[in-house]
Amino acid sequence: MKYADDSFMLHTDLYQINMVETYWKDGIHNKKAVFEMYFRKLPFGNGYSLFAGLQRIIDFIENFGFSESDIAYLREEGHYSEMYLEYLSNLTFTGTIRSMKEGELVFANEPILEIEAPLAEAQLIETALLNIVNFQTLIATKASRIKQVIGEEVAMELGTRRAQELDAAIWGTRAAYIGGFSATSNVRAGKLFGIPVAGTHAHAMVQAYQDEYVAFTKYAEAHKDCVFLVDTYDTLRSGVPNAIRVAKEFGDKINFIGIRLDSGDMAYLSKEARKMLDEAGFTEAKISASNDLDEYTIMNLKAQGAKIDTWGIGTKLITAYDQPALGAVYKLVSIENETGEMVDTIKISANPEKVTTPGRKRIYRIINNVNGHAEGDYIALAHEKPQEEERLKMFHPVHTYISKFVTDFTARELHVDVIAGGSVVYELPTIQEIQRYANENLNLLWNEYKRTMNPEEYPVDLSQACWDNKMERIREIQDKVLR
Amino acid sequence: MKYADDSFMLHTDLYQINMVETYWKDGIHNKKAVFEMYFRKLPFGNGYSLFAGLQRIIDFIENFGFSESDIAYLREEGHYSEMYLEYLSNLTFTGTIRSMKEGELVFANEPILEIEAPLAEAQLIETALLNIVNFQTLIATKASRIKQVIGEEVAMELGTRRAQELDAAIWGTRAAYIGGFSATSNVRAGKLFGIPVAGTHAHAMVQAYQDEYVAFTKYAEAHKDCVFLVDTYDTLRSGVPNAIRVAKEFGDKINFIGIRLDSGDMAYLSKEARKMLDEAGFTEAKISASNDLDEYTIMNLKAQGAKIDTWGIGTKLITAYDQPALGAVYKLVSIENETGEMVDTIKISANPEKVTTPGRKRIYRIINNVNGHAEGDYIALAHEKPQEEERLKMFHPVHTYISKFVTDFTARELHVDVIAGGSVVYELPTIQEIQRYANENLNLLWNEYKRTMNPEEYPVDLSQACWDNKMERIREIQDKVLR
Repeated sequence: MKYADDSFMLHTDLYQINMVETYWKDGIHNKKAVFEMYFRKLPFGNGYSLFAGLQRIIDFIENFGFSESDIAYLREEGHYSEMYLEYLSNLTFTGTIRSMKEGELVFANEPILEIEAPLAEAQLIETALLNIVNFQTLIATKASRIKQVIGEEVAMELGTRRAQELDAAIWGTRAAYIGGFSATSNVRAGKLFGIPVAGTHAHAMVQAYQDEYVAFTKYAEAHKDCVFLVDTYDTLRSGVPNAIRVAKEFGDKINFIGIRLDSGDMAYLSKEARKMLDEAGFTEAKISASNDLDEYTIMNLKAQGAKIDTWGIGTKLITAYDQPALGAVYKLVSIENETGEMVDTIKISANPEKVTTPGRKRIYRIINNVNGHAEGDYIALAHEKPQEEERLKMFHPVHTYISKFVTDFTARELHVDVIAGGSVVYELPTIQEIQRYANENLNLLWNEYKRTMNPEEYPVDLSQACWDNKMERIREIQDKVLR
Repeated sequence: MKYADDSFMLHTDLYQINMVETYWKDGIHNKKAVFEMYFRKLPFGNGYSLFAGLQRIIDFIENFGFSESDIAYLREEGHYSEMYLEYLSNLTFTGTIRSMKEGELVFANEPILEIEAPLAEAQLIETALLNIVNFQTLIATKASRIKQVIGEEVAMELGTRRAQELDAAIWGTRAAYIGGFSATSNVRAGKLFGIPVAGTHAHAMVQAYQDEYVAFTKYAEAHKDCVFLVDTYDTLRSGVPNAIRVAKEFGDKINFIGIRLDSGDMAYLSKEARKMLDEAGFTEAKISASNDLDEYTIMNLKAQGAKIDTWGIGTKLITAYDQPALGAVYKLVSIENETGEMVDTIKISANPEKVTTPGRKRIYRIINNVNGHAEGDYIALAHEKPQEEERLKMFHPVHTYISKFVTDFTARELHVDVIAGGSVVYELPTIQEIQRYANENLNLLWNEYKRTMNPEEYPVDLSQACWDNKMERIREIQDKVLR
């Protein structure tokens, strides 16, 4: 490589650097700007999503800054002026980021993060932040959705070999843990994030010994905890009998955890294997299964009475196979004008859902004090204080005639300060705490929002003031631009 | 983080480390083993795939070795013996890797890479190699498939914000370049790989100025090359007229490349915008389009006569949206026995396509000397010399009664030595050379294999000796295991 990969600062779209050049030449690069990140539609037809990505965002912001090789590359390839390159090379991040916590429930059209920074700085971090949040939130959501179907049984993440390159494997399995998974096969993720790792052996070991019984014996001689993979030659005629034989021969010398099925008819094989294990006296031995599983196949296996205790999920989770991208966007909602006042901005679209909601906002989860469940989320302008109101009117932001009043509620603000004045002011919880937090949040939701198919739509409503402000900006644009 | 992320050595499944412990305890860890990587089914219903991933594999092998923090982590979490940890910490890669070149056409069931190494070493690199090849090959293939539909026009990769984390964005866009794309928006990928980068401005710039005409003017004052994004407020009533106005006002002071459409009805808008540009005298101005495009929407837009010169492809390419995982596997085909001889190994399955093909092999592309086209690929055992035969019998490896004879052919071997005795012996071509090589390879193929829908199946055949060897191993296992 001609240039060292010594920073993530160029992990951005070229247009950001060109826009910033425009701002810098025009002298507006330090105008205070407020951007929001949100997505317009929940993935997988799910009723909620779980936010993940904050750890890597904090890493990214802490390492904000163009390296020498970044500047050298831009000089050679970019046709930028030396003065502009000088400006870039001295740039630090001085802004403020307010964010949901990881493990927070997030719904369509509500700001996940709010970035308040000089226009140039806010623009230069956009692409990487979207790249991080879009993927990690997608996987945390997929994992949570799968875990809803699995219930109390154990869910393992096994997808590294099918992940979309290395980062996706490790950050994806971290997101899966947030979504309720118990362990991963990826050792590096265990090392970096403190996620439990698990795994025993593959088909190759049986092939290496060319004898399944010998292979299991050798494994048992080297390891206390044993799970034998039983489908290298024939699951019921060879694999399960050999596993039982070795377990009996080794007795207390090993901890015979159980067997793993990796191909064939999982419903039939698991029931037959269960019988064989039980008849041999191994009623505590667990059966784990892994073979292109997702929430639908798991539901189906459960409906067939499959005897599976541990679910190993790979491809379909780590790539979010049925919807491999989340469409979060990053939109300017407010900017300082010539006289130093903040003015709200809007993007119009022929598609009503793509019209942005202008202005700086606060997001509240409205929790019913009587039953402890969430009534919906409430997006208000920054100066409003819904927590002080006795009776809150909530109405649908597209179908505005649908409304309800809420009383006896707690309005919990969903953002915390993560970066202030360019410095990290938030201490990231442990991954176990984040998983627990996600679980607590899920308990706030009525089951109707959590079901796998056709969940109810959770209300995310605008305050009257927020709505009025949006309407006013639309009229302004219509008068000015589309006259 | 408790442990530094100072190596990729733990980017593996835990079972690899446990299997290696078994081999090490049993003293067979240094037995020579041959593994092959291949996939069983082409992605996207495409008629071919393009191999990518070798650069990162070489990086990975060059950095093979457990770091101190890797060992510290395994010591604390893994319950491994000090002697085993000592063994691991001294491990280097001493094996040989033969691989297809990047940009090579690859089909189902043919070895992309062959790894010949001490059993332990071969096992420890499996997961990372699959992770790399599965993703990069998938994206190179998707890009090539999209480029087939685009034809001579320009294809741009714009997917970073929707990619599955950071690595996927940069290695994905490198793969897209191999597949025929012309440029990327990702500046870091440009820096690392020498891919051309492109991009001008986003909606945010128009919003920042709150006036589209002013925004375009400011951009033109700061940049020679101008592409204006015209859909922030209203494409035909505001965006295109403002672009034309600024282009006229600046005249020769800018290079008005054209406009970009990012929402709405692309067929209608591009035709109307084309008329407006032409009427204003900007007949050379290009129209670029980007809005969830893939090979199907592009085909459809072309069928509607859309006037689009540059195609910007994001989400659907960088995530391989309609099939986000390739299923390459890594299988043991031969291993040294107690007496030092190599013996072939097999994995049986109830599914005939999952039965592995034992033995060390060589892969040849059989090129017809008369018409210059490829007749098929031919998988032979390592000792065979098909290039010396006058008349080659090729038969289908599942439907064996389908066969043909080929004469007057060139048998081009598809593997090159990349790593020998642990050292890199292959010089990676430039990314431009790799793209060119991919193109030359595509020219070998009859069009019937390249069409987007329902392509013909390209023949990948086994030699008679290879087939006989497989049958013999199957009988052996049946006699021994399933008696």
